[in-house]
Amino acid sequence: MVPAAVVDASISELVPKLSAGDILIDGGNSYYIDDIRRAKELQAKGIHYVDVGTSGGVWGLDRGYCMMIGGPDEAVKRLDPIFKTLAPGRGDIPRTPGFDKRGGTAEEGYIHCGPSGSGHFVKMVHNGIEYGMMQAYAEGFDIFKNATSKELPEDIRYDLNLPDIAEVWRRGSVVSSWLLDLTAMALTENPTLSEYEGFVQDSGEGRWTIQAALEEAVPAEVLTAALFVRFRSRQTHTFAEKMLSAMRQKFGGHVEAGAPKAK
Amino acid sequence: MVPAAVVDASISELVPKLSAGDILIDGGNSYYIDDIRRAKELQAKGIHYVDVGTSGGVWGLDRGYCMMIGGPDEAVKRLDPIFKTLAPGRGDIPRTPGFDKRGGTAEEGYIHCGPSGSGHFVKMVHNGIEYGMMQAYAEGFDIFKNATSKELPEDIRYDLNLPDIAEVWRRGSVVSSWLLDLTAMALTENPTLSEYEGFVQDSGEGRWTIQAALEEAVPAEVLTAALFVRFRSRQTHTFAEKMLSAMRQKFGGHVEAGAPKAK
Amino acid sequence: MVPAAVVDASISELVPKLSAGDILIDGGNSYYIDDIRRAKELQAKGIHYVDVGTSGGVWGLDRGYCMMIGGPDEAVKRLDPIFKTLAPGRGDIPRTPGFDKRGGTAEEGYIHCGPSGSGHFVKMVHNGIEYGMMQAYAEGFDIFKNATSKELPEDIRYDLNLPDIAEVWRRGSVVSSWLLDLTAMALTENPTLSEYEGFVQDSGEGRWTIQAALEEAVPAEVLTAALFVRFRSRQTHTFAEKMLSAMRQKFGGHVEAGAPKAK
Amino acid sequence: MVPAAVVDASISELVPKLSAGDILIDGGNSYYIDDIRRAKELQAKGIHYVDVGTSGGVWGLDRGYCMMIGGPDEAVKRLDPIFKTLAPGRGDIPRTPGFDKRGGTAEEGYIHCGPSGSGHFVKMVHNGIEYGMMQAYAEGFDIFKNATSKELPEDIRYDLNLPDIAEVWRRGSVVSSWLLDLTAMALTENPTLSEYEGFVQDSGEGRWTIQAALEEAVPAEVLTAALFVRFRSRQTHTFAEKMLSAMRQKFGGHVEAGAPKAK
Repeated sequence: MVPAAVVDASISELVPKLSAGDILIDGGNSYYIDDIRRAKELQAKGIHYVDVGTSGGVWGLDRGYCMMIGGPDEAVKRLDPIFKTLAPGRGDIPRTPGFDKRGGTAEEGYIHCGPSGSGHFVKMVHNGIEYGMMQAYAEGFDIFKNATSKELPEDIRYDLNLPDIAEVWRRGSVVSSWLLDLTAMALTENPTLSEYEGFVQDSGEGRWTIQAALEEAVPAEVLTAALFVRFRSRQTHTFAEKMLSAMRQKFGGHVEAGAPKAK
Repeated sequence: MVPAAVVDASISELVPKLSAGDILIDGGNSYYIDDIRRAKELQAKGIHYVDVGTSGGVWGLDRGYCMMIGGPDEAVKRLDPIFKTLAPGRGDIPRTPGFDKRGGTAEEGYIHCGPSGSGHFVKMVHNGIEYGMMQAYAEGFDIFKNATSKELPEDIRYDLNLPDIAEVWRRGSVVSSWLLDLTAMALTENPTLSEYEGFVQDSGEGRWTIQAALEEAVPAEVLTAALFVRFRSRQTHTFAEKMLSAMRQKFGGHVEAGAPKAK
Repeated sequence: MVPAAVVDASISELVPKLSAGDILIDGGNSYYIDDIRRAKELQAKGIHYVDVGTSGGVWGLDRGYCMMIGGPDEAVKRLDPIFKTLAPGRGDIPRTPGFDKRGGTAEEGYIHCGPSGSGHFVKMVHNGIEYGMMQAYAEGFDIFKNATSKELPEDIRYDLNLPDIAEVWRRGSVVSSWLLDLTAMALTENPTLSEYEGFVQDSGEGRWTIQAALEEAVPAEVLTAALFVRFRSRQTHTFAEKMLSAMRQKFGGHVEAGAPKAK
Repeated sequence: MVPAAVVDASISELVPKLSAGDILIDGGNSYYIDDIRRAKELQAKGIHYVDVGTSGGVWGLDRGYCMMIGGPDEAVKRLDPIFKTLAPGRGDIPRTPGFDKRGGTAEEGYIHCGPSGSGHFVKMVHNGIEYGMMQAYAEGFDIFKNATSKELPEDIRYDLNLPDIAEVWRRGSVVSSWLLDLTAMALTENPTLSEYEGFVQDSGEGRWTIQAALEEAVPAEVLTAALFVRFRSRQTHTFAEKMLSAMRQKFGGHVEAGAPKAK
């Protein structure tokens, strides 16, 4: 079953046990279009549906996590004590200047984004951004890794210490981030990352983000490129690449060397 | 030896046999920056250097090929009879409306582009465009090929006949081209292209084209993407992809499946 | 009304006039997902629905055009005489070697691609490829245009003759195509293209092509980049660009010059 | 004068005042290729050249900044007390697990990356990554901004609170970073960013990063896309876009609407 079908099945099981006025929370990563449909269906039965996207990963308990909530005002307001309790609170994160005048709950670590689906919509784009940021670091470190490449003139080859670079950037640099903290951890464990194959999944939100960009006519080059790298990472060769080889053979008589480049 | 070094070595061998007023033609795919340097060096000896880019592939003898020429006016003018003889001539290619008023030699299949290096500069960008066009077809047919994908709902899967599609597009479609003719040939020989591995070389001009775009601050998304696909095609996995796997493991506890997706 | 709604309205008007066994042809550029839905609805009434994508532009009458057909075998077979009559036929286009052994109608200029929606699916990807090819040429000529840029060292600036380049490439080059013929026409009329603003529409098929790529997990970097250029071309500045300016101001104190660069 | 020329001129002025054994530090953002040349030239005079890239922006004094150092071991070792003093030190940044076993100075906020040029090489790629990360956020917020677009069906439009989203993501989310902190500041000041035009400079390092990727044959889709967005942001329309309009007019008779889309 695809994930959406699993959620729909769970809801079908729960509905008979719910009464008008009850609130059903979907705290996973549902597609916001599915949320909108479900909210309508449940509303007909007087049941409120609230979609909550969460970010924080497996570190949430230690480090806190934030919640992005979509759904009808009344239902979300009723749940506020729960969200307030679950949310990380302000902690010792420095305040954004002027934010105190804005009010609201964002500084507590949760927000009501808007009507049904908007919580998962915000979470979805969050994940799209995550893909883009990850890919930005990944490409940069790939350039470092290949700075020893034999394709380069000898005097511009560098044999760089990747864990040191990740670590030093944690100290005040413009690219400091939590993803960089994690990168430093992984590289400190093993500077070659040889235990990772590089077969990279995508979990739906990245694709939906691009779909939203297409529908809004927003150019999203970086988020899309990051997603396509993942698609490509799961294949030995694409059919597209065979097409290129075939065309090259036809116009230029090129016979491609077959051996994949060692890394 | 890198290609540029080969050309420089050949020139060094030839120079002692040349006299002032002689013309040396580089009919390969030299980097235009090298042309400019060579032209200056030879000019000091009174020798003219003319750079000529040619396009037509292994089909040139049958189908004609065109020449893009760079170098000093006087030298290029002196060689005009040679270029006129080598060039394909007008043949039966329909004339571009109004081109008769422009004059020049373009309709004969050769042009003097400008000073030293400009012939190879124009040829270089030609190849950059070639990469982009090839990639456009390649992605389109990859989408066709994967229209049978199990990732799709069953009622929108299509099992398409790729040779037929390539062939029918040769009949008046907007995407008709010589590269499409070659694609139709390859797919007619073997609709699965199983004899091609998809390890795709790039021959220098593609990279130089992007370098020129960088220097001119021209956004060249498509030409660059086409080049990067070739870089990627020559690797089993990039270090970038291992970085992505590592980060995913760190924040989400994701353990990536290792088996490459069958195509 | 969005285009799909127009088609649905037309079908609703036609249906009362049709009887079981009649065939309804949609010869526009419908979304294949809509085709599938319509075909099912009409099938319930015994009416056959056939989707036909056509490519050839406003030149179709002179130059021929090809047809990509989707629908049930029986209905498409029944219409064969019509398609054969409308199709351009083999004309004097050189045959693809070996295609004679394949049989079928592709050489006549039309094909039956598969079940409902497949005609428009093939046409859709055709347009996606078209966007990619157009963008490849466009970037190449942009690099030529800016080869006079003051950002370049003086000795590598070239003042190139764009109509001549387009014309000479029509003579046997690897990038020769019908789109290049049209490019040569436009540049011959006016080498600066000053009558065009560069506000570029997209007509749906490009977006749907990317959506299909997303659903199939096919990396389609070039087709997507080509589409995003069009999205961008219709805006003065994106909100994304304002975000970049804002971040630059915040971390570096950069105040961006406001004047758009003259071209 | 281009920046490199300014540095070379300053060095020429300084050299007569230096003696063998002296160390000259370039603490700017020089191109590493220039560093290598300069180091060689100065080495001939017995002068050591050390290249130091710094990251931290205008906030460095408050928040700390890190240093990436290239140059001969001996010279860098001699300067160590200076770097140690300038560096931010460990502060209260949580330690990367296991880093204590690695030793070195990275945790103090400075590293010796390798021979001449390597300091600026590492800083250069840092900036390339920075462009990519900035663009990832920028595209995500652009999708939020346009979630009210009239291009969308009414029931999936959202009117989102951008400052709240940026703020809540600072609370434990996977995309938390210093750039996000700055984004939250800017959006809190003015949620529409109307004071920013979106004309975005690039300062050299981004282009050099892509050049390094080209030389190493590393696919760098995201870093390149981020750079091209900046190129594009500084133009009203590219010549490429005019080419697209011209081709569309020629094959389809399309006359493009001229009015730029209001945002």
